[in-house]
Amino acid sequence: MSAPPEPLPELGVAVIGHSFMGAVHSHAWRTVDHVGTPRFRTRRVALAGRDAGRAAAAARQFGWEEGVDDWRPLLERDDIHVVDVLTPGDSHAEIAIAALEAGKHVLCEKPLAKTVEEAERMTAAAEAAAARGVRSMVAFNYRQVPAIGLARQLVADGRLGEVRQVRAVYLQDWIVDPEFPLTWRLQKDRSGAGALGDIGSHIIDAAQFITGQRLLGVSGTVETFVKQRPLEAARTGANTGLSAEASTEVGDVTVDDAAVFFGRGDGGALMTFEASRMALGRKNGMRIEVNGSQGSIAFDFESMNELHFFDGTLPDAENGFRRILATDPAHPGVGNWWPPGHGLGYDHPFVHELQEFLGAVADGRDPSPSFADGLQVQQVLDAVQRSAENSSAYTEI
Amino acid sequence: MSAPPEPLPELGVAVIGHSFMGAVHSHAWRTVDHVGTPRFRTRRVALAGRDAGRAAAAARQFGWEEGVDDWRPLLERDDIHVVDVLTPGDSHAEIAIAALEAGKHVLCEKPLAKTVEEAERMTAAAEAAAARGVRSMVAFNYRQVPAIGLARQLVADGRLGEVRQVRAVYLQDWIVDPEFPLTWRLQKDRSGAGALGDIGSHIIDAAQFITGQRLLGVSGTVETFVKQRPLEAARTGANTGLSAEASTEVGDVTVDDAAVFFGRGDGGALMTFEASRMALGRKNGMRIEVNGSQGSIAFDFESMNELHFFDGTLPDAENGFRRILATDPAHPGVGNWWPPGHGLGYDHPFVHELQEFLGAVADGRDPSPSFADGLQVQQVLDAVQRSAENSSAYTEI
Amino acid sequence: MSAPPEPLPELGVAVIGHSFMGAVHSHAWRTVDHVGTPRFRTRRVALAGRDAGRAAAAARQFGWEEGVDDWRPLLERDDIHVVDVLTPGDSHAEIAIAALEAGKHVLCEKPLAKTVEEAERMTAAAEAAAARGVRSMVAFNYRQVPAIGLARQLVADGRLGEVRQVRAVYLQDWIVDPEFPLTWRLQKDRSGAGALGDIGSHIIDAAQFITGQRLLGVSGTVETFVKQRPLEAARTGANTGLSAEASTEVGDVTVDDAAVFFGRGDGGALMTFEASRMALGRKNGMRIEVNGSQGSIAFDFESMNELHFFDGTLPDAENGFRRILATDPAHPGVGNWWPPGHGLGYDHPFVHELQEFLGAVADGRDPSPSFADGLQVQQVLDAVQRSAENSSAYTEI
Amino acid sequence: MSAPPEPLPELGVAVIGHSFMGAVHSHAWRTVDHVGTPRFRTRRVALAGRDAGRAAAAARQFGWEEGVDDWRPLLERDDIHVVDVLTPGDSHAEIAIAALEAGKHVLCEKPLAKTVEEAERMTAAAEAAAARGVRSMVAFNYRQVPAIGLARQLVADGRLGEVRQVRAVYLQDWIVDPEFPLTWRLQKDRSGAGALGDIGSHIIDAAQFITGQRLLGVSGTVETFVKQRPLEAARTGANTGLSAEASTEVGDVTVDDAAVFFGRGDGGALMTFEASRMALGRKNGMRIEVNGSQGSIAFDFESMNELHFFDGTLPDAENGFRRILATDPAHPGVGNWWPPGHGLGYDHPFVHELQEFLGAVADGRDPSPSFADGLQVQQVLDAVQRSAENSSAYTEI
Repeated sequence: MSAPPEPLPELGVAVIGHSFMGAVHSHAWRTVDHVGTPRFRTRRVALAGRDAGRAAAAARQFGWEEGVDDWRPLLERDDIHVVDVLTPGDSHAEIAIAALEAGKHVLCEKPLAKTVEEAERMTAAAEAAAARGVRSMVAFNYRQVPAIGLARQLVADGRLGEVRQVRAVYLQDWIVDPEFPLTWRLQKDRSGAGALGDIGSHIIDAAQFITGQRLLGVSGTVETFVKQRPLEAARTGANTGLSAEASTEVGDVTVDDAAVFFGRGDGGALMTFEASRMALGRKNGMRIEVNGSQGSIAFDFESMNELHFFDGTLPDAENGFRRILATDPAHPGVGNWWPPGHGLGYDHPFVHELQEFLGAVADGRDPSPSFADGLQVQQVLDAVQRSAENSSAYTEI
Repeated sequence: MSAPPEPLPELGVAVIGHSFMGAVHSHAWRTVDHVGTPRFRTRRVALAGRDAGRAAAAARQFGWEEGVDDWRPLLERDDIHVVDVLTPGDSHAEIAIAALEAGKHVLCEKPLAKTVEEAERMTAAAEAAAARGVRSMVAFNYRQVPAIGLARQLVADGRLGEVRQVRAVYLQDWIVDPEFPLTWRLQKDRSGAGALGDIGSHIIDAAQFITGQRLLGVSGTVETFVKQRPLEAARTGANTGLSAEASTEVGDVTVDDAAVFFGRGDGGALMTFEASRMALGRKNGMRIEVNGSQGSIAFDFESMNELHFFDGTLPDAENGFRRILATDPAHPGVGNWWPPGHGLGYDHPFVHELQEFLGAVADGRDPSPSFADGLQVQQVLDAVQRSAENSSAYTEI
Repeated sequence: MSAPPEPLPELGVAVIGHSFMGAVHSHAWRTVDHVGTPRFRTRRVALAGRDAGRAAAAARQFGWEEGVDDWRPLLERDDIHVVDVLTPGDSHAEIAIAALEAGKHVLCEKPLAKTVEEAERMTAAAEAAAARGVRSMVAFNYRQVPAIGLARQLVADGRLGEVRQVRAVYLQDWIVDPEFPLTWRLQKDRSGAGALGDIGSHIIDAAQFITGQRLLGVSGTVETFVKQRPLEAARTGANTGLSAEASTEVGDVTVDDAAVFFGRGDGGALMTFEASRMALGRKNGMRIEVNGSQGSIAFDFESMNELHFFDGTLPDAENGFRRILATDPAHPGVGNWWPPGHGLGYDHPFVHELQEFLGAVADGRDPSPSFADGLQVQQVLDAVQRSAENSSAYTEI
Repeated sequence: MSAPPEPLPELGVAVIGHSFMGAVHSHAWRTVDHVGTPRFRTRRVALAGRDAGRAAAAARQFGWEEGVDDWRPLLERDDIHVVDVLTPGDSHAEIAIAALEAGKHVLCEKPLAKTVEEAERMTAAAEAAAARGVRSMVAFNYRQVPAIGLARQLVADGRLGEVRQVRAVYLQDWIVDPEFPLTWRLQKDRSGAGALGDIGSHIIDAAQFITGQRLLGVSGTVETFVKQRPLEAARTGANTGLSAEASTEVGDVTVDDAAVFFGRGDGGALMTFEASRMALGRKNGMRIEVNGSQGSIAFDFESMNELHFFDGTLPDAENGFRRILATDPAHPGVGNWWPPGHGLGYDHPFVHELQEFLGAVADGRDPSPSFADGLQVQQVLDAVQRSAENSSAYTEI
């Protein structure tokens, strides 16, 4: 029997926000020390919300030491080293910048901000902080799905040849019912955009991540099919924005229900995108197809453990897309989990995300994706909106 | 035992062209009198090509009485009542107009013409001919696929509610190889356009047919990934344009390899389109999804006997897309074929197409889709090309 | 221009039976001279039924020169060289033996006979006829499905290594409704067996064909879930046995609704089988999976243009079943039809079957599968029934 | 703000075993207090292995307070109330019976025991313990998969009508390589059986659970394709039995590689089963289909978040299997996790399992499935083996 290893350094974490992302991130924080090779002994020190009672209840439920109703004092505490920002988009900039300035490492949910201007300020703050050894990362969780990591790897290894076409859609249906109320996610001043920002940002990031090509310009249009909705009734529980009680009053929907756009990558790829919350029957249909000169891939998050790969170098008469179960130990992130065929769920990639974040903190490097990456996605979103306002004309990013 | 029925009137047919479409149409002409309730006793009188020997061989192979090297004399014969035009797009206008003026009913392959101007002249000729009882039809064969007919019926019956979104792609990969030669299908002066015209026209027609909405305007772009190719070597066999020998000289590709565009339907739907011959691994991936306020459908020609239907009126907890095998006797066109589950192939819808055409001739009505429908698709193709040349700006049709 | 080729020899064909198989075989006979390289100019001389009026109508519908109500005189005619036997199983032996003795080449539907004894007499007659240059073939049409041909080829080429396991099911649901009447297909004295004989025979043949292994013994059981059904009302149309009007009287079902069995192949494979007409929702679910030491394949006739192949020699981390669209020119039977991705239907393999039959007649060789092959399948069916009557104990074939 | 709730009672847990199941159960124990409505505050007190160093390392990794090399002293501790038995099958009986006698609630991995005799003794101990308020449960985790829970519910609600047929297979391929060594899972004296016990037990339980029918008798056979394998080299890590280093010596494989059997349920269903570790390309292909007189279902664990349901009461022309994403809040177990379409993984059902176990402990009722259920599955396994040794003759359970 060998001596026990040196104890790991302790790292105190505070999470700001406790609705849907609060549940998922908390699960990841509870898990990350126990999967693979941990770099820290993390402490779930505090969870902040806007209402003290609800924050305390959430802290108990999700396994945090305290629940508080103000995030500001947390930035002054020495036992908190990391701030995980999960609030609606309109408070990302304020919280993240303050935390970075206070010397806290910051993980921030996507889209990075409500506007390009905010994202620029956040990125500047992140770069200033990095110079002082303070790390920041934007939480594009789909990068951490093993099948998507494998897709990127196949492209990077040249298995697709020259990447020529991408088609990426993200289809949901949770607001098809016209009685679904006007939650913060449907208000431009809270969320910045609708389907475009919430889920369009995911497919922009994923398409660029997989192909290694950045969008140079776009042409797009947006649409709001249900133009008025009941206001949200007084809320008693967590504020996911994904469900709510309706009141009897109505208000105007100020974000898009669907957005479509196409663009050009800096490597010559022609890419098409669609984000919709009105695709009835599709629950989380984030689908990406990439066609290259030597191979193709196809992915659908509704079957998140599968990657379909066509290797154009095999003989025609026996070729076809192969359904790779992305559960092999060799696939990115899989090795620390279960045997082949024992699939992962929506939450596992969040653990991989923390592993990247904490690994970077431990190693003294910048984690990926950076706030600058988040800013670039914000610029694409902005270009789509400008194109939509300008007869869909091609708009540079 | 009952007396034998009255003999059916005889109808003489000539087919112009004998490559890929010649094989399929001939199969349909040989079959149509024997499926369901025939309206005529058809005679396969003549097949015309450009080379007498090849035309004679094709006539023998495909079951036509004669093979000739000039279509013009056929228009003067009394034993020919129908002309089926299967040539490359640059001769449709000349042949179809001449045939209609000669009083022959005309079935013409799609896209109707090489340009809007030609399509307008053809439509004018068709309308003049109709006034004299002479019928014309453009061969958008995918309308006749039972699953697509069922899709249209579900929309027409209100099962999808208000149709809001369409995504239609047609993906092939037969010219991914840069050594594939510059056949007529890759020359703008022969074919008018590339993927956009050849397969883009199919999804434009199908999307409009299923939804009952016509496109009002579009924004689009086109791309040619392989800009030069070997010239075609001297050809000895049929001229499908789908395969050929390469010579050692090269020439410029003058059509698109891929086209993407989105547009608005006159019923408010937001529709996206992509046609590509560069989608490696997709052989005939004509896929259409329609989302409405009450239901959704999804179709992929690579599984042509299936329609996926989501009926939003069922309870959430047991709902999902259902895979309807479109082989039920109640499905459009199926009743005269095989029992449920015994699927149809690529060629069966061509028989349905002839049934519509011959039924219209027999009933003295205009078949559907008309040359005017073909013209409208041509106008959409033209608007896409104009948008592509104008920074993808929205372009009215 | 070359001189026209020598005319092909003429071959007169008579078909006995005109219900479901009559429609399919007639379609194939009308088509076979026009696909690939024909060996004969076939004449569709006569169609025989039991009722003169219905036979005449069927002959008109399906394109035969005459319709007659007695098959016997046909055997004496010099203008008939081939007899295609499509009647219910209880008359196969009488017709086929008489035809062979009259010197006619015989194609006979499956299962070859109602009993092993009949099949033995038919096989003896076939062998005697072969000695005189008269050919015979049993119509296991699924062998001619390109995906199944490709499966066999992969096994034969060693791509699966040692074949170890087969699971084959054939699932239909057309008699789930207890009001479906007692047609000849549900009467043991007409059909010999139920699901076991009708569709079980297909999967036995296909499993043996693909693997090249013959079953040595089986253990099985059979079940009749609906034990009584309404008698069939007087019939006015063709007698497919697949649909009928119900009378008010009931009778006992004397065949199985479902049969399950497993067995051992002579190459060591463990094979499982299930045939059911009670698998609600499955219309023609003939599914076969084969696992070998180096590869696996999977097929489902409901997606008949696909073969799924797992090549165990590829690296684990990028491996998976690949969906081969069995529409490549290199796939068995495909080359004479349409381009890749343009799928075939239920009827095309019947043309391939005639090509094999006519090719054998032309070449003076025995076509495959032979009556002896049909007899061997009959022996397997018999062994399953004997095992079922003997506590499912292992029963040699 | 309301007062904080009463603190939950504390419950101390010990886990015996720390390989594959140790990782999964530990993850579930870390999670269970934070999902839904916890009933206890659980403490992960101790993890026991056979080697002190490895147990200590596993305890650190998986989040247990101590790691020990002897489970016996744990039974005497007052701070341990629950024993979770995850060892190879040959020690289940000893540990579980001792723990129950010591008054510990016991959760025991499946199959319950190595032999029927052991399972009988365990069941007797469980029943004696239950009389003293001590609970026991066998860990058939697949019952807790939401799609399987939904399947059961549909059957229980009568949506399938009379259940007539079940086909259940469990296909893996991790020992196809003949160089895979002779781990304990391939030794009859350690594991009791091979594929039959390990994965066959899962599909027996699942089929019975979903249909509510118990097997009355079976006919079966087993096969070992690779009869000798290299012995396992000295082991340094955890002992999953799923991977190992090979030594140069070989030994006899004493368990089955594959088992096939069919049987009759007490409600009249005809059920077929196959368990194989030799199905190349299938990683965790636990597939179940159930056909009833009014509906059918189909499930494949490789797509664990989907249930396919055919509702026979819908009109034929629009009917088909529908792909239900079993991620709706109404589906069993889902409500405490993520929104629809955000799938679960292999580990989540283990949390549901603990919720059932802890709920039963809290409520003073017996959890399900019981040791008696585990015994019944053991009796089925035994009957299959007896049938296999008796020419596959039908063998009562």
